Amino acid sequence: MQPPATGVRLEQQLGFLLEMDKLKSVLRQSSLLAVDRFENSAEHSWHIALMAVVLAEHAAAPVDICRVITMLLVHDIVEIDAGDTFAYDAGATVGKPEREKQAADRLFSLLPADQAAHLRSLWEEFEAAESAEARFANAVDRLMPALHNYHTGGGSWQRHRVTLPRVVRRLSPIAAGSAVLWEYVEALLSDAVEQGFLQDEDASHAG
Amino acid sequence: MQPPATGVRLEQQLGFLLEMDKLKSVLRQSSLLAVDRFENSAEHSWHIALMAVVLAEHAAAPVDICRVITMLLVHDIVEIDAGDTFAYDAGATVGKPEREKQAADRLFSLLPADQAAHLRSLWEEFEAAESAEARFANAVDRLMPALHNYHTGGGSWQRHRVTLPRVVRRLSPIAAGSAVLWEYVEALLSDAVEQGFLQDEDASHAG
Repeated sequence: MQPPATGVRLEQQLGFLLEMDKLKSVLRQSSLLAVDRFENSAEHSWHIALMAVVLAEHAAAPVDICRVITMLLVHDIVEIDAGDTFAYDAGATVGKPEREKQAADRLFSLLPADQAAHLRSLWEEFEAAESAEARFANAVDRLMPALHNYHTGGGSWQRHRVTLPRVVRRLSPIAAGSAVLWEYVEALLSDAVEQGFLQDEDASHAG
Repeated sequence: MQPPATGVRLEQQLGFLLEMDKLKSVLRQSSLLAVDRFENSAEHSWHIALMAVVLAEHAAAPVDICRVITMLLVHDIVEIDAGDTFAYDAGATVGKPEREKQAADRLFSLLPADQAAHLRSLWEEFEAAESAEARFANAVDRLMPALHNYHTGGGSWQRHRVTLPRVVRRLSPIAAGSAVLWEYVEALLSDAVEQGFLQDEDASHAG
């Protein structure tokens, strides 16, 4: 099926946007709260973009929320080619940067050059996690799965027998993005251990 | 399960965000492009927010893209209570404004009052479709399903035997949001009729 002829620029933009549809089929390890199915990366991206809007006041430093949201809208699109890499799967993370770079090369270049450069730079900024916006964006990106795991009685922590020290390491970038949210997460993790749906290291060794 | 104690404000914010998870289970009439399943309203919201970023230059009037994106992130959340109403189902649209108002009353009020007022006003602005931002947001919200139907050989137009005049009426707000996109849509609809996956009125009467 050939779409009707249009300007090259609009054609490139729409081609990129239609390609983006595939992110709806990339499944993550996190489950929905009320329904028993895995979450996909497109709906996850919507959820954390909204999260950034609502929690912006807790950012460690003042952020341009528009940049944060735009960053979050594109932060996972490389998964269309590279797939979602489960954070606690050390094997799967081998070669991840190279796979994601190749994906970024292909996907962003579907856009007109100026927009490709702009959105790719936002993705790279997110990955580098150095600017105030990227630190806060990374904080919400890590906070949400922790909330999902907590509110589903352990979720992927349980399924993959991930222990407290690894979760703390994985979530620690939240501290750089927001002291308020990090304090909340520390309390949440303590409670998760107490309730028995997150194992501390000792329990894991004993089991 | 009780989450760890925290400030009332943060608790309200996180309560709202967790409730938002339900939008991932609200199904629309549009199908994904590469996979045979219906789209949900959360992933749709992500997709059109990204669409707004990419197509902003085509807006009929200059827009504050940050307002447009934020509007799109919340434009469908009332469906958590009110459900998705298929645009071409006249019966289902009866009582829709009242159902959605009640949904907005409950959902936005989960937030701290200042944020509830802010995000609700953006939703109302989207619904009114009068500001430049709301007109452009409505344009992308209507453009995307048309692209989905076109690129799936008819999609919900076919399934529900919707004819060209009704599609034109449904999509006409795109013209107010972007002349460029409206011109594109007109060509796309002509081509859809020519290819036989959208019936013009006559064909429908004959069939």
